[in-house]
Amino acid sequence: MLLKTLTRLLFTLSLAGAVLHSARAATAIEGPVPSKGYAMFSADGDFKPYEFERHAVGDHDVLIEILYAGICHSDIHSVRSEWGGSPYPVVPGHEIVGRVTQVGKDVTKFTVGDIAGVGCMVNSCGECEMCRMGEEQFCTQGAVFTYGSKDRFHGDAVTQGGYSNNIVVKDAFAVNVPADADLSRVAPLLCAGITTYSPLRRADIQAGDKVAVAGFGGLGHLAVKYALSFGAEVTVFDITEEKRDAALEMGAVRYVNVKKEGATKGLNSTFDYVLSTIPKPYDPMMYVNMLKLDGEMVIVGLPAFAEAPSILINRFIFSARRKVSGSLIGGMPETQEMLDYSIAHDIYPDVEMIAVDQIDAAYDAVVDGEVQFRYVIDMATMD
Amino acid sequence: MLLKTLTRLLFTLSLAGAVLHSARAATAIEGPVPSKGYAMFSADGDFKPYEFERHAVGDHDVLIEILYAGICHSDIHSVRSEWGGSPYPVVPGHEIVGRVTQVGKDVTKFTVGDIAGVGCMVNSCGECEMCRMGEEQFCTQGAVFTYGSKDRFHGDAVTQGGYSNNIVVKDAFAVNVPADADLSRVAPLLCAGITTYSPLRRADIQAGDKVAVAGFGGLGHLAVKYALSFGAEVTVFDITEEKRDAALEMGAVRYVNVKKEGATKGLNSTFDYVLSTIPKPYDPMMYVNMLKLDGEMVIVGLPAFAEAPSILINRFIFSARRKVSGSLIGGMPETQEMLDYSIAHDIYPDVEMIAVDQIDAAYDAVVDGEVQFRYVIDMATMD
Repeated sequence: MLLKTLTRLLFTLSLAGAVLHSARAATAIEGPVPSKGYAMFSADGDFKPYEFERHAVGDHDVLIEILYAGICHSDIHSVRSEWGGSPYPVVPGHEIVGRVTQVGKDVTKFTVGDIAGVGCMVNSCGECEMCRMGEEQFCTQGAVFTYGSKDRFHGDAVTQGGYSNNIVVKDAFAVNVPADADLSRVAPLLCAGITTYSPLRRADIQAGDKVAVAGFGGLGHLAVKYALSFGAEVTVFDITEEKRDAALEMGAVRYVNVKKEGATKGLNSTFDYVLSTIPKPYDPMMYVNMLKLDGEMVIVGLPAFAEAPSILINRFIFSARRKVSGSLIGGMPETQEMLDYSIAHDIYPDVEMIAVDQIDAAYDAVVDGEVQFRYVIDMATMD
Repeated sequence: MLLKTLTRLLFTLSLAGAVLHSARAATAIEGPVPSKGYAMFSADGDFKPYEFERHAVGDHDVLIEILYAGICHSDIHSVRSEWGGSPYPVVPGHEIVGRVTQVGKDVTKFTVGDIAGVGCMVNSCGECEMCRMGEEQFCTQGAVFTYGSKDRFHGDAVTQGGYSNNIVVKDAFAVNVPADADLSRVAPLLCAGITTYSPLRRADIQAGDKVAVAGFGGLGHLAVKYALSFGAEVTVFDITEEKRDAALEMGAVRYVNVKKEGATKGLNSTFDYVLSTIPKPYDPMMYVNMLKLDGEMVIVGLPAFAEAPSILINRFIFSARRKVSGSLIGGMPETQEMLDYSIAHDIYPDVEMIAVDQIDAAYDAVVDGEVQFRYVIDMATMD
């Protein structure tokens, strides 16, 4: 009721935005927001249409009509319960771009009609040291993730993701997408982009630094583009011959198919930095040992827990002073920075557009390493 | 023959050093150097007297009469074959301090009568990038370690360590011990000292930084002293109540007995830096998670391989941006720096002096955690 009154007040006051506000006033949804998407109902099922409700658009929330949703390897790990249990039905998707169709009364960051992006998080406490630093992914009370996450700010309802026609999210967890962006290719930046941009940016890559990108998929190919844009000399590692040309065309100085006998010969102690985006079992020490003294390896690829490799701590001593760490997406200020940087530098993922009825096939192709490099679902294909 | 001629020439030319040179000329050993020490003859045996030969004193070598040798946990792991096979008989000991009794003709760093220290290495190629950087422990051709190591510069003879009456070593691998040093307490600095000083120094600890030292034994107690001298606020972790008073007296602000229920409560995300000196199985992630964002854990304690813990790489992502690495002793320039710093700042290990016939008992006490903090063998007790 209050929202309606205020919306009308804004409408009355507005001159320039009269049409948009009018449209909003006409269609404003006041209670829970009806939503439809594609969900998995069990770890080994197929995607099926699913109708559900999202929480009401609060004073600080925006309602976004989803245009495109990227398919991240994480989605597959999650809905197949490879990272621990998932609540079903689950609508995955945390690479989301769409158009704002309704804003809460306290929202100043967006107006109706703006293009917005949503990544892996939709809320956090906003008050802890991490949140105040803009590192909401490390919220000491736990960030609310975009799907499969208990939303303590909305009665512990489990969140649902972006393979759907809309989403309601706190304004601080949506980023402004520059108007000149190529929208069909923006979505994967919201997870794959920030996941690779953040560690590479923090590594303070200098022109000429020797950077290795291990795993040349959705994350890896964006990592290559960012590292090149920072001036690095980039080497790509993967397990197939099929991606060699793409890597070299992208600007890598070297492509290493680690399945080939002797492929890594001579590479020990040669890199300043390694970013591992590998989502499957592998030998992490092979990459650690390719670092120069004091070099750093950052892990962002997350294999299924049941098959994830380990590092024996003794091996750290004999690979002394080479550092290993992980990185987890990035905070919201950095996500906005990444998006602005990407659009300004024309850095986009290589995408293949699919319809909603192709999601199952796309998952199989991702697992088989057949996608080059990212599937994006055109949500307009959902009748 | 050449050495003899040159020694005589020097003798003739020398005025100031007449007596010393005379002494050297009188006692110079020209061929292999006879040596006696205490050796283990199998992984589960006891120490027994052992007579053997060391290589001749070359032009760049010094012969050192050993005064004191520290007992390092590494010695125990090595002679008991817990880090892989050892060649027997093995005379361990890589914390050595003694008096120079003979120098090769090209040695300028020492003269007879000087006090010298020898640590974990006795040679390296001297030509690779690592050696030129003064990081001989990472020599790309492999450093020659003080005992149990094939000495490729001397016909692949296996090196023997410091539980003996003398050692022959290249001058670059002996450090100058300041004349005012308390010699009975210097020996452990050559391994335990450099092993903890090097990573702490590189961590660029600032006054007030919160540093955790995990494992409060020979390495750990020196780490505490160095960290305190750099101005850190130090917390000590161990598995016993018995070391609590010693830690607090040393200047630690907090002692945590991790065996006590709830002892680590409230400590997550509170440290800038963790140094793990633990030589036994433990949960490394417990310490990683106590680091602040972007904090660093460095591992220097090396458990037996059969029981060493691992870190699942996925856990790096969920402990994101906390770095883990190892450190391995330090190069020779840094070892000299450490020794000068230690003596100037009155930083010594707390030692308990033993006789050669007490080595077996001392080993048992180290394994049982009963030493507080370092045994040093008085080599004068070897008849």
